[in-house]
Amino acid sequence: MLTEPPSGTRDFLPAEMRLRQRVFATIRETFERHGFEPMDTPAFERLETLMGKYGEEGEKLIFKILRRGERGAQGEADFALRYDLTVPLSRLFAHHRHALPRPFRRYQVGPVWRADRAGRGRYRELFQCDLDIVGAESILAEVEVIGTLAACYHAVGLPGVTFHVNSRKVLMAILEAYAVPSEQIGTATIALDKLDKLGAAGVAAELTERGLSQPVVAAIAADLASADLDSRARARAGASERGRAALAELDDLCGLLAPVLPESTTTRFAPFLARGLDYYTGCIFEVYHPRLPLAIGAGGRYDNLLSSFAAETIPACGGSFGVDRVLLLLQEQQQAATVGRSLVMVGVFSDDLRASALELARTLRSDGIPTELYCGAGQLGKQLKAAQGANVTCFVFQGPDETARGEAMVKVLATREQEAVPLGQLVSRLKTRLG
Amino acid sequence: MLTEPPSGTRDFLPAEMRLRQRVFATIRETFERHGFEPMDTPAFERLETLMGKYGEEGEKLIFKILRRGERGAQGEADFALRYDLTVPLSRLFAHHRHALPRPFRRYQVGPVWRADRAGRGRYRELFQCDLDIVGAESILAEVEVIGTLAACYHAVGLPGVTFHVNSRKVLMAILEAYAVPSEQIGTATIALDKLDKLGAAGVAAELTERGLSQPVVAAIAADLASADLDSRARARAGASERGRAALAELDDLCGLLAPVLPESTTTRFAPFLARGLDYYTGCIFEVYHPRLPLAIGAGGRYDNLLSSFAAETIPACGGSFGVDRVLLLLQEQQQAATVGRSLVMVGVFSDDLRASALELARTLRSDGIPTELYCGAGQLGKQLKAAQGANVTCFVFQGPDETARGEAMVKVLATREQEAVPLGQLVSRLKTRLG
Repeated sequence: MLTEPPSGTRDFLPAEMRLRQRVFATIRETFERHGFEPMDTPAFERLETLMGKYGEEGEKLIFKILRRGERGAQGEADFALRYDLTVPLSRLFAHHRHALPRPFRRYQVGPVWRADRAGRGRYRELFQCDLDIVGAESILAEVEVIGTLAACYHAVGLPGVTFHVNSRKVLMAILEAYAVPSEQIGTATIALDKLDKLGAAGVAAELTERGLSQPVVAAIAADLASADLDSRARARAGASERGRAALAELDDLCGLLAPVLPESTTTRFAPFLARGLDYYTGCIFEVYHPRLPLAIGAGGRYDNLLSSFAAETIPACGGSFGVDRVLLLLQEQQQAATVGRSLVMVGVFSDDLRASALELARTLRSDGIPTELYCGAGQLGKQLKAAQGANVTCFVFQGPDETARGEAMVKVLATREQEAVPLGQLVSRLKTRLG
Repeated sequence: MLTEPPSGTRDFLPAEMRLRQRVFATIRETFERHGFEPMDTPAFERLETLMGKYGEEGEKLIFKILRRGERGAQGEADFALRYDLTVPLSRLFAHHRHALPRPFRRYQVGPVWRADRAGRGRYRELFQCDLDIVGAESILAEVEVIGTLAACYHAVGLPGVTFHVNSRKVLMAILEAYAVPSEQIGTATIALDKLDKLGAAGVAAELTERGLSQPVVAAIAADLASADLDSRARARAGASERGRAALAELDDLCGLLAPVLPESTTTRFAPFLARGLDYYTGCIFEVYHPRLPLAIGAGGRYDNLLSSFAAETIPACGGSFGVDRVLLLLQEQQQAATVGRSLVMVGVFSDDLRASALELARTLRSDGIPTELYCGAGQLGKQLKAAQGANVTCFVFQGPDETARGEAMVKVLATREQEAVPLGQLVSRLKTRLG
């Protein structure tokens, strides 16, 4: 029978898991220090909760769950695995909106599932660490979200990230300036969002394919290919009142952000950044690191998503820390690929002495020393070998002689030292060895 | 649109979530102190990995995932949500068996999914905290698993639990003593496992329904209805050599356990305990608390499960801490229903002073004070009201006067005190307030 995990999902063995736990703890601590509260939602939602939220590309990637019983046998699905943590938050907030504070600042850490093609940094089960501020119209919400994420990259030991920042409103103004007809703005956006992947010529080809007129494609292509793309885009957006207001808002955001961000963190105006998800309405951003061509974080403002669950308009803004890709970079950096073990193994001299071995383990544990009791077969020699295989720091046992003298034998595996230690000094001696 | 979570699943709001995080942290800490290492597997597995492992009742409750694309549209499933953490562990161990130590002691914390009827303490998304020792034939593995679980109930503040202990081998010997034909042992076991739920008469009726002969049912029913059921069962098991060996093993286990268990924890011989899952082979147990008629923990030995994934027999033993039901009991106990907040909100005096409010928040955070910056609309009065609604400890702001004097205004929400604090003393003053 196949024993690897399903394609795009991963098993985490202890050494890697310890690193993950350490990084997740740092993220939680950073989020809480920035005034975000923990929250959780189920792994699956009603199918209709998720449909119509992620755009045509996203929707195809939703994992659907068969109904139980008769209707499942006919292929009917009722639930679906969550695709992100933003839509579940919106459903939850709508449900509890009279009990929750406004603004509501929450974070949520957990897996989401996307039936995407697997590859380096691309998973079908990926972990997100999201933070959102619901009920906040001020641009300060964007500053808080981006500032907290930036603090996270810094705290986990990944400096040098860049926030690519744009606004859906700027993008709309630019497209209007190109005279893209309003019914083609959606399809044009999908093509433009691929600029990093396809390059200027590729985007132009895709725009043509998607039915945009030749003069429009030519104007866009000329700007995309130019060396001062950003200032050209700025000029396009500045052609309309709405575009100027959107640019001013983005400048305000970047101005407020500058003193908040850690030293190694930069922001960059990315006028063609669109973000695939349907629900964004204002500022949008993605985070990049020089060593990975995929975003390691993203987010934005979604002022209308809540209104699909509640009979009122509730502004909201949030972001997601791409912990799996950050861990990939940290592991490639070698500096923290795994986290070691630090514990004691108690050996069992003979069946007669099982109770005293258990008592020894109990004592060490009650003094806070991580201790495993050997539960396999075999004599001390085999046990010691198992201790080596398990990366144990010290192996401790009591034979009849040690018991008679009120001692325990301690073997330090790294140095092969061995010493008989009086029981009264055992805990402090082991604590020194464990460091 | 419906906004509650799907039936049998739950949203966790911050106050409850903080309690859950605290309890989960205690469990992890206890597991690690007992020499178990963290590990994780995906939420879903290949359908064939899970089939044939949980018995006929269990298998019906597996959530299946539709294939993507064409074949999904035809109702075909390829993956399924994990039903427990034991089968995924077995698959993982088989896959990595040449790299992992033996015995391999791991723990895993995470949700599993069962399409069960929802009710008090019954969830369709439930969280398990499992610990297992793979590659350990010694009864010491059972002692370690049960001892660690017992330490967990104690550590999270739920004393007074009882471990109901049996062995599949004892149960087999008892059924043989009743002359249950070997082909009816499976079906008889399912009926006997319902003794707590159905009572003696109910089990007798179900045994008859399941086709057991009248003399057999009469003998079983007489024992079940008797006041000294346990000693009668003991006598039945003791009628065969294998039964006596199985009883001796169970006595050995209980003898070794007694000095290890915390004071308030007891064990009880439960001769008709069967555990529904197919994979158990030796010692089995369930954990109960007087205030809940459902098991709050369970486990046992499964020496043959690994061989369905690896071409070798690998003994294993494990247990599961029923954290959701434990949390239910803790919450009903009222002593720890929620965990409060302890943080500062920085108010924004005016748009002109946004940057200085951000700087104030940045300073407090860098000194380790959990701080949220107000991101909603409205003047200070409205902000203060929002701070009250968000259970903030202190509200801090700087208007032009405070800024000129190098001070910040601090309002303590619980006492309505207000004082101007020089910036140099602000951090220490707030730390005192936060406690």
